Amino acid sequence: MSSPSAVVLLSGGLDSATCLAMARQRGFRTLALSFRYGQRHAAELAAAARVAAALGADRHQIVDIDLRAFGGSALTADIPVPKDRGGAALAEGVPITYVPARNTIFLAFALALAEVEGAGDIFIGVNALDYSGYPDCRPQFIDAFTALANLATKAATEDGCRLAIHAPLLAMRKAEIILAGRALGIDYAMTLSCYDPSADGLACGRCDACQLRRKGFIDAGLPDPTRYAV
Amino acid sequence: MSSPSAVVLLSGGLDSATCLAMARQRGFRTLALSFRYGQRHAAELAAAARVAAALGADRHQIVDIDLRAFGGSALTADIPVPKDRGGAALAEGVPITYVPARNTIFLAFALALAEVEGAGDIFIGVNALDYSGYPDCRPQFIDAFTALANLATKAATEDGCRLAIHAPLLAMRKAEIILAGRALGIDYAMTLSCYDPSADGLACGRCDACQLRRKGFIDAGLPDPTRYAV
Repeated sequence: MSSPSAVVLLSGGLDSATCLAMARQRGFRTLALSFRYGQRHAAELAAAARVAAALGADRHQIVDIDLRAFGGSALTADIPVPKDRGGAALAEGVPITYVPARNTIFLAFALALAEVEGAGDIFIGVNALDYSGYPDCRPQFIDAFTALANLATKAATEDGCRLAIHAPLLAMRKAEIILAGRALGIDYAMTLSCYDPSADGLACGRCDACQLRRKGFIDAGLPDPTRYAV
Repeated sequence: MSSPSAVVLLSGGLDSATCLAMARQRGFRTLALSFRYGQRHAAELAAAARVAAALGADRHQIVDIDLRAFGGSALTADIPVPKDRGGAALAEGVPITYVPARNTIFLAFALALAEVEGAGDIFIGVNALDYSGYPDCRPQFIDAFTALANLATKAATEDGCRLAIHAPLLAMRKAEIILAGRALGIDYAMTLSCYDPSADGLACGRCDACQLRRKGFIDAGLPDPTRYAV
């Protein structure tokens, strides 16, 4: 009997790489799904491709969507990415790097791929602790999408396939995620978390994502393999 | 005081055109949203542009998304569109013209646009009677998406903006929709409902959508302005 398939949302960052390794460990045939969505740099997609190959994803699909048409975020419009905000600021409010409805859109595409491929499981590396300011990283959002997914498709409503959304990192600290990923053999040097990498893929070291990542390795007591610009 | 804005999903068909006219009548500033999603023909988008202009949408935005990457439907893959199925077949099961998770994806983009534009209302022309086979045209799907939307965005969770999804055609028969639209002054000749139009935009007359449309005009006792190939 063949393994059940799971769709894994893969950004190329530390969290989604860990998520992919977890899905593999649970025995799923993994369909990694990334988006070309008007990111400032292609470095993110290059990292996703490295991660998919290194961690043995059975397929890696990149879908083009044009979030730049809407703007409204430092990640999709000409708005500067905040730097050097430090720990306190990270916990406050919704940051400008929030992309409107992004995880709703990503999960909607994952749902379409899951239905076409007969997959009953979707993995997403959202985290409600470090990204408490992002509404679409919270457990109640994941629960609401699960409810929607099970009403939205032919697979769920006619063929009786329950769809599960897995968010295994939801309640983990960054250091715990790193330790879990290392235990699964991930080399985090191939991942890229930075919101504002240089043209050659160097992490800026100063955006919220870089600061969280740096602190994660320190808290985990592990050397940080990231190549930072500063 | 300026009018509140609403995002209106606009395919260029009879239903979504009626929906746009209804949103305008309710006094909304309307942001029409269409998708270039691997449809077999550009005729659908040409119809959407005609409808947006004729009905006075304040803006018409077309977003590129690549549903062909997934396939799985007669509308996005090389699968023939069923013809001449007749009334009974239309009510049975999920047809091959169902596009996996399409309305979930469309509403996710509408949600993003609504958040960026400060709109608290989304209109979608789904219909649970004529399209009973499509899971994502049912009232419980709309309710689940509304619940999701109000957990998914900064606007809803931080700024206290409730988001409403309007599906004014949900419980209407095609003839009722046509009569309502005529009362609002819509010239349905500019709309295109066909799943398989000719290169020059002629409706095939034989797919499920054409059959429903034809019957709708007959039931409404109105002349059908559609240019059918047969």
